[in-house]
Amino acid sequence: MKAAKIPEATITRLSMYSRFLKRIDRRGVVTVSSGEIAEGVGVSAAQVRKDLAYFGEFGTRGVGYNVKDLLHYTLKILGLTHPWLMALAGAGNLGTALCTHRGFRDRGFSIAGVFDNDLTKIGKRIEDIMVQPLEEMPEAIHSRGIKIGLIAVPTRGAQEVADIMVKNNIAAILNFAPLSLSIPDSVLVRNVDLSVKLEVLTFNLKYRGSMAPEST
Amino acid sequence: MKAAKIPEATITRLSMYSRFLKRIDRRGVVTVSSGEIAEGVGVSAAQVRKDLAYFGEFGTRGVGYNVKDLLHYTLKILGLTHPWLMALAGAGNLGTALCTHRGFRDRGFSIAGVFDNDLTKIGKRIEDIMVQPLEEMPEAIHSRGIKIGLIAVPTRGAQEVADIMVKNNIAAILNFAPLSLSIPDSVLVRNVDLSVKLEVLTFNLKYRGSMAPEST
Repeated sequence: MKAAKIPEATITRLSMYSRFLKRIDRRGVVTVSSGEIAEGVGVSAAQVRKDLAYFGEFGTRGVGYNVKDLLHYTLKILGLTHPWLMALAGAGNLGTALCTHRGFRDRGFSIAGVFDNDLTKIGKRIEDIMVQPLEEMPEAIHSRGIKIGLIAVPTRGAQEVADIMVKNNIAAILNFAPLSLSIPDSVLVRNVDLSVKLEVLTFNLKYRGSMAPEST
Repeated sequence: MKAAKIPEATITRLSMYSRFLKRIDRRGVVTVSSGEIAEGVGVSAAQVRKDLAYFGEFGTRGVGYNVKDLLHYTLKILGLTHPWLMALAGAGNLGTALCTHRGFRDRGFSIAGVFDNDLTKIGKRIEDIMVQPLEEMPEAIHSRGIKIGLIAVPTRGAQEVADIMVKNNIAAILNFAPLSLSIPDSVLVRNVDLSVKLEVLTFNLKYRGSMAPEST
C-alpha cells in the first residue's frame, strides 16, 4: 500500500465505512454491497469501490463484502487494532464533552488523563477521571504511554499546551482551539475547526439552486 | 463560477484562508503573497494559488494580493457578507461549548435559540441565551428567521430533532451526534465527527516512517 499516495479524504471516508460496518456487524449482518455501504454513509457506491481499491481487492462480484472481514481490514488500515491513549488538555465544556463522547471508546480511543490549570477544575472528576494540574501532564505522558494529545483549552493557552506536548514526545495532536498551532514536522497535527463546516454549508446555501453547473 | 465543480476541500481551505486574512487585516497588513497565506494556514503556496484560481484572477504578479480585497472576496464567496442565525438543539457540555465558541461570532454566525427537552436545563442561561423547551423550536425557527440548525443532543435524540428542523424548513444542519441522519436532499447536512480526524492521525502514525512511498 502506498500510504503517501492515499488522499486524506479517502482515509476520512474509510473511517466512516468502518463505523458503518461495525454497526451492521453488531446487528448480525454477514455480507454487504458497496451500494449498501454507500447508502449507510451518504456517498456514492462508485466512491466506496474507488476508496477500497486503494487497499487491495475485497469482496466477490455479485455477492458483496464479508462484513467481519472488511471491518477487520478497515480497523487494521486505520491503526485501530490496538487501543490509543490520549491526554486531554482543558476540562471546560468542550473538554467535558470530549471525555463523555461515546464515539471515542467505541473506536479504541481512551482518555488517560485530563489536565487543566484552572484551580476550580483541578481535582474534579469527569466520568471516572480526575482533573490534574497541567504541570503533571509531562509525567503522565511518559508513565502512561500516551501518544495522542487533545487540545481543548481557550485560544490563548493553546500554543503553550502544544509546546508541552511536543517537548514530551507526543506523536500526534488533535487541536480544537481556533488557531493554527506552530508544531514541528515530527509531530502530526490536525485541527477540528467548528466553523469551517458551517462555511461549507453557507457556501452551498448561497449557490445551490441559484446557479446551474454551467453558469458563471 | 461553476459552484458545482469546486471541490469541498477547496471551500474548506478557502474558509481557512479567509480567517487568516481577517487576522492579518486586523494587524494592519496591506498586501500578502500566496506563500505567506500558505505558511499561515499550513498548506503549499501552489495549493493556495490553485484554490483561488477557481474563483477568478486575484493579485498582481510580484506584488501579491491586497488583503482587504481578498478578504472581502472570500467572505462573499462563502456567503458570509450577511449574518446567519442558528438554532442549537442540546444544552449539554457540547452545546454549551458551541454557545461560547468565539469562532462563530467572528464569522457572522449567531446562535439565536437554544433548545433542550431536559427539564433541569430549560430556563438556564448560557451566555445571554435562555434554554427553551424543544417544542418551542418550530416557532422560533419561523419567527426569528433561523436558517441553520446545530444538533448537539445525544445520539438517541438526534434523528427526532433533525426531523423537527426539516419539517420547519431549516435550510442546513450541522450534526455533532455520531450517527448518519436521514435527511431529505432539500436540506443540506454536514457531520462533525469528533473521531474521524483521530483516525486520520492514527492512520498516519501507523504508516509514517515505517513505509516508504514505494513500498507495498
